[in-house]
This record gives sequence, structure tokens and C-alpha cells, in this order.
Amino acid sequence: MNKIAAIIGGGVIGGGWTARFLLAGWDVIVFDTDPQSERKISEVMKNARASAPYLIDGEMPAEGKLSFAKTLEEAVSQASWIQESVPERPDIKRVVYCQIQVACSKEALIGSSTSGFTPTELQEGASDPSQIVVTHPYNPVYLLPLVELVASPATSDEQIARAKEILSSISMKPVHIKGEIDAHVGDRLLEAVWREALWLINDDIATTDVIDDIMTHSFGLRWAQMGLFETYRVAGGEAGMRHFITQFGPALAWPWTKLMDVPELTDELIDKIASQSDAQSGAHSIRELEAIRDKNLISFLRSLKSHNWAAGAFLNEVDAARKASSNGLSDPDLTKPLALHKGRVMPDWIDYNGHMTEYRYGHVFSDATDAVLTAGGMDKNYLDKGYSFYTVETHIRHLGEMALGDEYTTTSQIILWDGKKLHLIHEMKNKDGDIVATGEHMLLHVDQNKGASALAHAPVSDGLAKLAKAHEALAIPDYSGRSVGVKK
Amino acid sequence: MNKIAAIIGGGVIGGGWTARFLLAGWDVIVFDTDPQSERKISEVMKNARASAPYLIDGEMPAEGKLSFAKTLEEAVSQASWIQESVPERPDIKRVVYCQIQVACSKEALIGSSTSGFTPTELQEGASDPSQIVVTHPYNPVYLLPLVELVASPATSDEQIARAKEILSSISMKPVHIKGEIDAHVGDRLLEAVWREALWLINDDIATTDVIDDIMTHSFGLRWAQMGLFETYRVAGGEAGMRHFITQFGPALAWPWTKLMDVPELTDELIDKIASQSDAQSGAHSIRELEAIRDKNLISFLRSLKSHNWAAGAFLNEVDAARKASSNGLSDPDLTKPLALHKGRVMPDWIDYNGHMTEYRYGHVFSDATDAVLTAGGMDKNYLDKGYSFYTVETHIRHLGEMALGDEYTTTSQIILWDGKKLHLIHEMKNKDGDIVATGEHMLLHVDQNKGASALAHAPVSDGLAKLAKAHEALAIPDYSGRSVGVKK
Repeated sequence: MNKIAAIIGGGVIGGGWTARFLLAGWDVIVFDTDPQSERKISEVMKNARASAPYLIDGEMPAEGKLSFAKTLEEAVSQASWIQESVPERPDIKRVVYCQIQVACSKEALIGSSTSGFTPTELQEGASDPSQIVVTHPYNPVYLLPLVELVASPATSDEQIARAKEILSSISMKPVHIKGEIDAHVGDRLLEAVWREALWLINDDIATTDVIDDIMTHSFGLRWAQMGLFETYRVAGGEAGMRHFITQFGPALAWPWTKLMDVPELTDELIDKIASQSDAQSGAHSIRELEAIRDKNLISFLRSLKSHNWAAGAFLNEVDAARKASSNGLSDPDLTKPLALHKGRVMPDWIDYNGHMTEYRYGHVFSDATDAVLTAGGMDKNYLDKGYSFYTVETHIRHLGEMALGDEYTTTSQIILWDGKKLHLIHEMKNKDGDIVATGEHMLLHVDQNKGASALAHAPVSDGLAKLAKAHEALAIPDYSGRSVGVKK
Repeated sequence: MNKIAAIIGGGVIGGGWTARFLLAGWDVIVFDTDPQSERKISEVMKNARASAPYLIDGEMPAEGKLSFAKTLEEAVSQASWIQESVPERPDIKRVVYCQIQVACSKEALIGSSTSGFTPTELQEGASDPSQIVVTHPYNPVYLLPLVELVASPATSDEQIARAKEILSSISMKPVHIKGEIDAHVGDRLLEAVWREALWLINDDIATTDVIDDIMTHSFGLRWAQMGLFETYRVAGGEAGMRHFITQFGPALAWPWTKLMDVPELTDELIDKIASQSDAQSGAHSIRELEAIRDKNLISFLRSLKSHNWAAGAFLNEVDAARKASSNGLSDPDLTKPLALHKGRVMPDWIDYNGHMTEYRYGHVFSDATDAVLTAGGMDKNYLDKGYSFYTVETHIRHLGEMALGDEYTTTSQIILWDGKKLHLIHEMKNKDGDIVATGEHMLLHVDQNKGASALAHAPVSDGLAKLAKAHEALAIPDYSGRSVGVKK
């Protein structure tokens, strides 16, 4: 299977898919009849390049090649994956599938971004219904990992497995929904909220900003990390889920929703919403709001990564899979300072001067120290025994500036390892190889069971000794042993 | 108005209110007929004390006094605020109000935590309907700031203003909903989602974990920072909100929700949900899930604070209001190192050893440096001119350990200020006054317009000179000028 994707329909959603595939190293061919599509795609790509890399710890693959096809046939002929994101009209979609299937490979899969229609509806009249599945993403597609995957009985288990594999390869989380219903699952929930919210506006109970404030200051925060059922499970407390749900019984009989009826979307109601939204959000352009949204989502997702929870646990799995599929670190070259750590400057590392803030250099060196200890044999098993290293002294020299997204590497030299004391020097380099900071550190091996420093044990004692031995041949940098202050 | 609150009904919600008031310095008297209530409240307080302080930057007020009353009358007689969180039955609630109003002050306000009933319904038969308002919070009450405030026409503008003031004083965000409807606004939206989700389970389209995964990996992340309308405004892109909504028109006519009908909560459906929830979340106890939830919420809220957005912008306002109402820093004592900064060890500062991680000491010293520069006259206006300080060198000695939540203070001594170079020493002390770390720093004043170091300008040049002059009399710590390494 080649890594070529065809994107049919290049709006916000098609652009998001384009970014997903390109940033995962796939080549992407876009087809859209809109003459603005190239510009629109380039704007989504700009947002994606400015945010998606911050969700990844580890190596990003080289970006794939983006091209625009003059005809649909040209776009799909080589593709292993074809993503359709044309307007939500089944008649249009069916014509597109017909054109696609004339030109595409029999092995290709065709994913539809439809938020409403079932695969069975979409497949009507198709030459090969089995190729067509629903793969419904969420905006911004380049940051939110979810894809609802829905297949009709026409699609084989092998095809479903292949669809999952391809979606996983672009760091998305395919959730396979077994039943075919209009609007799948997520948009069922969204549609319910949307209809209820329309009533609240229509009846002048609340304005758009009041509804949004209520969501962002309460249950929105909850649902970023636990869904409806887990949230209620916790709220139910010791009495348990069963008791908690039973309590809801009476409320279901109460008229606590106007959804027995559907609001009519009159011009008046549309005007009301649009002008309330202007009052609420008009101070920011759409571009500004996108940037704010993406910055917030990156922070949430990185927090969840550090807690290994919900979407963050998923992103950690993605990192681990990527690391496992790369061949791993080759044995480090011991004749030079160890090149064990690399990364990029994260959004929350930027200070009021617009540069990487000073203490994050300490963060990078702390990660570099961990990499040295890991190379020396320290692992979870060793830590679980109560052994660890504490840093007792740190000296950092700031020599250059780093900006948002700048990539860096570190090299580490062991100056001394006596079985208990570890004296390290790290250098942090920018993409051009210039040293932007140096860190000199003294660590002590400790036995936390005794609450005191202690000689290290195997395998760390020997592992570090081997590294230190090799580094004896290296010259000690002339800045080693420097202190802060004006020379007297 | 005294700062005494009565909490009637001490379950999860009453416990959350108790925490809000106590941690804001109010005295709280709880009344509940449940003999377990004291234990239950103490468990909520434990969670609240372990999380709420991390949302605040600045001084926490001294915690109020918690007591438990033997009778309802005893609980309410002194209170300025009475919060009712008894079961959701209007008949029970009305009896409670009757008992409250016999004993409470005429000036007191009675807030109901009801998620469903309108103030007019609750006031039926009350001796003074005007005292009773709906103040509906969200769980966990000690972290989520939102309160829906709903009043009937019986309640005066002055009473509504007082309710807002009291809720603001406990760091909550009262959103005043002008219309009285069942379930107010937030629970209307929640109820719509809940009913739709029940159908999805009932019809075997999805299980609880699939629904929760879909929420937490897509729109849940969105709604923690932008509500329904702002999210759709952004999704609509350049075409604008009006165009975007108009597109929704056809979907409203489609049967994209089953809410035209109400699912019957049969024993079978309850069993299905409870057992799916066990399979999904049963690996963690409720206590564990609470701790995970609170940690995630703190991270989200702190991210939003640093971006000054949504609930984070609200928390920043709370900090600013608290700071303004304290009398501000008195003039610092210049005969000693400057005591300008204090804080507590945040959840994301903890490393795998369970202690404050090394680079966060650099973070604390960076904050202490900012406090010195501010005391020297640096402000936004000065920075906006392109002037700033860059740290060029840092030396940190780690002398003690700090654990989650430990409070610290810093003192700062100016060793040298020559108009361009600033040499500082900070000491970080724990609650007992022991030095846990020292930081020695060299900074350079820079003119970012010229991209080079440059002499500082007024008021910073003079401000720092005044501080430096006063510090000339202080002895320079003996560890100044120390370097990392084994003495040769």
C-alpha cells in the first residue's frame, strides 16, 4: 500500500484531513472545483504546522508532498485513501463516488466526512459499495484525534481493519460505531444541544454569550477529560451508578427539554443569533479565534498527556507506536558527548519577550539528565526500589535565544562519576548547531528508603561507569567550574 | 453583613458549597439529618483543600470555622447566606424554606441548588418569597466557578446584587439568567445530551465508554474553552455565522435526534448502563476518579489562566479583585533582602520522586526576579517600549525538598546594579523558614529595538539603583560566586 491520499473537497474539513496526512508523511493530492481551494488549504496548513507538532513527543516524519489535481480522476487514480468532504447532500456525494470509482484502485478505501448520512445511504448505486465508509472527524481536524468510523455490512472486516490502520497511521483515533444511524453518535449529541440552544435563544431565556459562558465554566471543562457517563459515575459517589441513574427517572418524565418540538430557523432567529454572536466574539477575527482555540487545545492535550488520561493517553500511545516503529536509538557513540535528547520549544515556554523563558532551559537540561540516566540503566524498576538521583547544584549559561517551535538537540558529557556523585555538562544546540545554553549539574545518587545519599547499584552503577570511562578521553569544556558574577 | 453561611443538606453539592465558603474565609454551619454528613463533608473538604488553592495566585484568606448544627434553626439564625441542597422535591424544599424563614434574619438570602425548579415554584407559600433564589452550581463545586442565578420578580434588584456580591466573594461566577424555566440553561443542555445518550445505549448503537471516548476526544475539548456558538462561529470561517447557521436549516427537519420521544428508564436499561459503566471505569475507585478529575481540571484552568481566556480569565479577575482589596504591598523593608514573592508547589511541578522537580526552582527564581524588576519600576509600559532584561547566567543550589502544596517565600538581594548588569541572589524558604534553594543570577538590560544590551532608562534605572544602594549595607552570602564541581 502506498502512502498517497486524495482529498476531494478542500474546505475547512478537507484542509484538516490534508494536514493530518501531510504531517504524517503521506503525499496528498487535493481536488476541489473552488478556485479558492489552494488558498484555503494553505491557510489550514499554516494553522496545522503551527500547532500539531506540539502534540508529539519524539520525531516527526518528514512532511509529505502536497499537490492539486485538475480533475477528480487524476486526484484519485494513485491513492490508497480517498477522503470525500463535499457538501452534505447525498445526491452530490453519490455522483462523486461514481466518478471516484471509475478511476480509483480496487484496493483504495473511500472515507466520507459526512456528519449525517449512513454508509448504506451513501453506497446507493455505487459500483463497489464495500469501498465506501463513513470517517467523520471533528474540527480542527489537525488537532482533535477522533474519527467516527461507520461501515455498512457491504464492507469487509479486512477493509475495516485497513481503514483503522490508515487512520491510526495519521495519529487519529478511529472509534468504530457498530450501528448505522443518522448523525452517528457525536453529532446526535451535538444536534440535541444545538436544538435546545436554539430554543433558549428563540425564547429569549439566554443570549449566545450566556450559553457559552455556562458551558465553558462548567460541564465543558468536565467533558474535556471525562465523558457524560464517567462524570455521572463520579457524581453518584459511593451510592453507585445504578442509584444515581435511578434518580434521573422522574426528571425524564418532566418537560425538561423542548426537543419534543423543533424550532423553526426563521430569518428572525438567524439574525438574532448572528448579531448576538457578533456582540460576543466580534472583537476577535476568525483567524485570532482559531489561534486562541488551538493554543488552548494544545495546552489541554499536553496536560492530559502528562496525566496519561483520556485524549492524552491516546497521544502517548501514538508516540510509543511511532517510537517502536522507528528502529530505536542506535548504540550511542561514546567517543563524543552523548546526543540523547531532542525536542522543540513549546507554546507554554514563551515569556513576555517572545522567547523561550529562562527556567525552561533548566527543563531541557533536566530532560537531558534523565536521558543520560536512562542510558546508564535507570528505569522504572530501579526507581521503584527507592533509588534515584537528586540534583544538588545547577549552573546555566544563556548564550542564544530560542523562539516558539524552534527545534533543539542536547549533548551530554560526564565529567565525573564516583558511584554516588554525578557531574554532568549539557550543551543545548539550535537547528544550526549553535550552542544556545550550557548546563553544568551535580547530582547525588540517593536511597529514598534510607532518606540519604548512597552508592548506586547495578545496573546503574556499571552503566554510568562505562559512559564515564569513555568520556575520560574528552576535553573538559573551559566554562566548567564557572560561577555567576563579575570577576574580581 | 457578617460572613456566616448556613449549609442545609450536606451531600456532595452541600459539601462543595461548604468548601467554597470556608476556603474564602466564611464561617460555615452545616445542618443535615444524615448521621454520615460530618464524614461526607470532611471528605469533600479533603478534596477541596487538595485542589482549590492551586487555582489561586496570591494570598488565600484564612480558612473559616466549620461547625455542625443540631437543628436547622440553630444553623440559620446567624447566617447571611443560606444554601439549600436537599433532595429535588419541591414539597420537601418548601417545608425547609418554611423552617428556615421562621429562624433566619430578614436580610439573609436563601439560595437553592436545585437543578430543575424555578424560583417561583420554590417560593410558593413562603412567608417572604423575595429571599429565595436559585443558585445552581456544578460539581465539583469547589473547582468549577459557575453558578446559575435565577430570581423571580419577587426578588428585588438590591437582593440580586447582594447575591452576586456574595457569590463573587467566594470566587464563583454568577451568571444571571433572566428567564425562569425548568432546569434553567445548563441542565437543559445536559438533559438533552442525557436523553439522547440513553437512546444510544438503549438501542445498542454505542456503549458508555464509546460515547465517553467520543466526547473526550472531540467536542469536550472544544467546550472547555469555547462554547457552542463561538465554536460554530470559528467553524463557519470567513463565510460568517449567518451563513453557517443557515446551513443547519435542513438538518433541523431531519430526524437527527430521538428526543421527539422519551426513553423509558426500565430496570433493564439501568442494568445495561451500570454494567457498561463498571466495565469502562471500574478499574478506578470513585476517590481515584475524583482525584484524576480534579488534577485535570486544575491543569485546564491554569492553562486558561495563563492564556487569560474563558474560565481562566474569570479566575484572573478573581485574583486581581483579591489583590486590590488587600491593601497591597506595603513599602518593602530595604534594610533586608526583599520579601516580594510567595507561592505554593503546584501539581504539575512534581517529579517521579514525588518532589518539586529541579527546573521549577528556576521557575520560582524567575518569578522572584520579575518581582524585583517590578519593584524597581518595570511594568508593561516599559516592556512595550522594547526594553527588558535577559538572564545570562544562573546558579542554583538545591538544599531541601518541597512536596505538593508546600508554601514558599523568596527573599532577594541585589549584589550589583551598574545600570545595565544586574546581579541578584534569591533564597527560597519553606514554611518553617528553612532555605530549600538559593539562586544566583546575572541579568543584562536589553534594548530589543537595537537587539543589544543597553543602559536602562527611567524609572527602572533609578528604581533599581535605589534598591541596590540600600542593599550595599547587606553582607554578601558566602555561597555567592560558587561554581558546580568538586573542588580541586
